[in-house]
Amino acid sequence: MPLGEFELIDRFFRRPARRSPLGIGDDCALLAPAPGMQLAVSSDMLVEGRHFLSTVRPERLGHKALAVNLSDLAACGAKPLAYTLALSMPRVDEAFLAGFAAGLHALADAHAIELVGGDTTAGPLTICITVFGEVPPGAALLRDGAHPGDDLWVSHPAGEGVSGGIGDARLALEVFRGELSLPGGDFEAVRRAMEQPQPRVALGLALRGVASAAIDLSDGLLGDLRHVLRRSGAARVSGEAGTAGHGTHALGASLDTATLPRSAVLAAQAEALQLTCLLTGGDDYELLFTAPPAARGLVERAAASAAVGVRRIGCIEAEPGVRLLDERGQPLVFEGRAFDHFLP
Amino acid sequence: MPLGEFELIDRFFRRPARRSPLGIGDDCALLAPAPGMQLAVSSDMLVEGRHFLSTVRPERLGHKALAVNLSDLAACGAKPLAYTLALSMPRVDEAFLAGFAAGLHALADAHAIELVGGDTTAGPLTICITVFGEVPPGAALLRDGAHPGDDLWVSHPAGEGVSGGIGDARLALEVFRGELSLPGGDFEAVRRAMEQPQPRVALGLALRGVASAAIDLSDGLLGDLRHVLRRSGAARVSGEAGTAGHGTHALGASLDTATLPRSAVLAAQAEALQLTCLLTGGDDYELLFTAPPAARGLVERAAASAAVGVRRIGCIEAEPGVRLLDERGQPLVFEGRAFDHFLP
Repeated sequence: MPLGEFELIDRFFRRPARRSPLGIGDDCALLAPAPGMQLAVSSDMLVEGRHFLSTVRPERLGHKALAVNLSDLAACGAKPLAYTLALSMPRVDEAFLAGFAAGLHALADAHAIELVGGDTTAGPLTICITVFGEVPPGAALLRDGAHPGDDLWVSHPAGEGVSGGIGDARLALEVFRGELSLPGGDFEAVRRAMEQPQPRVALGLALRGVASAAIDLSDGLLGDLRHVLRRSGAARVSGEAGTAGHGTHALGASLDTATLPRSAVLAAQAEALQLTCLLTGGDDYELLFTAPPAARGLVERAAASAAVGVRRIGCIEAEPGVRLLDERGQPLVFEGRAFDHFLP
Repeated sequence: MPLGEFELIDRFFRRPARRSPLGIGDDCALLAPAPGMQLAVSSDMLVEGRHFLSTVRPERLGHKALAVNLSDLAACGAKPLAYTLALSMPRVDEAFLAGFAAGLHALADAHAIELVGGDTTAGPLTICITVFGEVPPGAALLRDGAHPGDDLWVSHPAGEGVSGGIGDARLALEVFRGELSLPGGDFEAVRRAMEQPQPRVALGLALRGVASAAIDLSDGLLGDLRHVLRRSGAARVSGEAGTAGHGTHALGASLDTATLPRSAVLAAQAEALQLTCLLTGGDDYELLFTAPPAARGLVERAAASAAVGVRRIGCIEAEPGVRLLDERGQPLVFEGRAFDHFLP
């Protein structure tokens, strides 16, 4: 007998609500934020063929769908609480659902959060997760707090040359596109970076009160850095936090490309490909953040407490524009653009 | 020059955050729930060809995408606060986006809520809205509070025979499917019911402390009633609110089909079609709720304060099953099933 939508929710997604007053099964879920806390909310939609390939293992897809949302909470320094899942799929494929739910629940359990509600419908395979976290008022890490003179930092996996950091997901995509060939083990490593990114939630929490601005790397380092520069510049002019700021009063940055942390697999590629992957790759889910030079020790301590690496890759400047420097500190010309879903 | 995703968000969706500490443009939005309030959350995904036809006017689609989510808040008696929008679309169609945003913003303004964040991507036309509301602890209307002896009520548009109540959306669908022909004005009226439903937010708020259980009608009256009966029966046995309860200890109900409120257009159709539309139509977004007989005056007053109609259509009984009665109180046989996205 075919599974209906309510049976499939029961079978694969319903688990008892532990922290929320009301979980799956009513018109709404109920959340009880801790008194005085602000609620951080982020929503990401993943579309087959755009954000993931049909060949991805369902466990990894379940992981990634939640990971990209947790990464947004990480970038805000918010503590994850709960999430909703809206899932559109062409048919009920029980093997897919079992794997997808296993990957989803495993990452949720690792962050002690629960699925509280959502929607299931027939349609093209599309996943929309909305995640909720809490943060004390004024403590959220925003994109608009960078100042000239601040250091520019990026997170990376703990250990030297370990796979999974910025650029690896793009390297895997190059292999899928047939533009590059990699030995089996290397491909598996960068493929895992693409399909199973690790959200830097612990680092985001540890950077509260330390970082002046933060963003998670999803569209490529250069594009995401420009978001920080635009919003921080606009906030400086208007004196207001949360200002949009698109280009008119942007700050600038110098970026020492040689210091960009990279996996051994990526480091073995041609220099031009390395730069493309590092600067415009996207799908990285590391944190890019700024902090005053006086906070270097605190940043290192935050990273150690979160068991991830951090690397100082440049600094924020008043002069607009991003200046790329090579290993000798000389200007480096790079033609590349951040990923945009609607631009060719 | 083609519009990129950040430009289209700026052009069509960004408006200043008025009540939220942080709106569109950072990794997360920030909400500040009023102290002591619980947060009600609901998420619905609309897929082209499933939940709406490609012929729908973009303004109405924007309205409906938010309306179905507000309807879930209404069913919980929650006061709407904010929402996020994740939008996947094949290409940037500025005329579509302008209309869609206008319909969305108009309904949001009518409920004094704001768009705080979301996601935009290329892909099949799919809309996922997550809506947030607040409700005092213990005050949410749930599906599991019905008791034997309670009256069964349904809301309807104010006025006799006015279009837009239960069954009209299904009638429009029958016309789109070519199963039925209607005079132009009648078709326009039921089409509006399908494409531009009015969420009963004010009624849900007014029913706090009055209704014992509530649900919004999205899958068809019989199917949605069974959700209430199952969860209320399970809650009675376990003594716990929020229990799943699928069939083992369900309550029952008698439903006087002749009392079901219907538009003049629907009332002019063959009796069998009327019943199909009323009992299994779906996409109604009226509230189905229960209340003790002693509360009839309070229910009428709540409806009057919300400027909508309510009709008593039956009662809750301890004996499982739904007993349909005709206009003479005789058992009525009806073969129909609630809508399910994955069952034929």
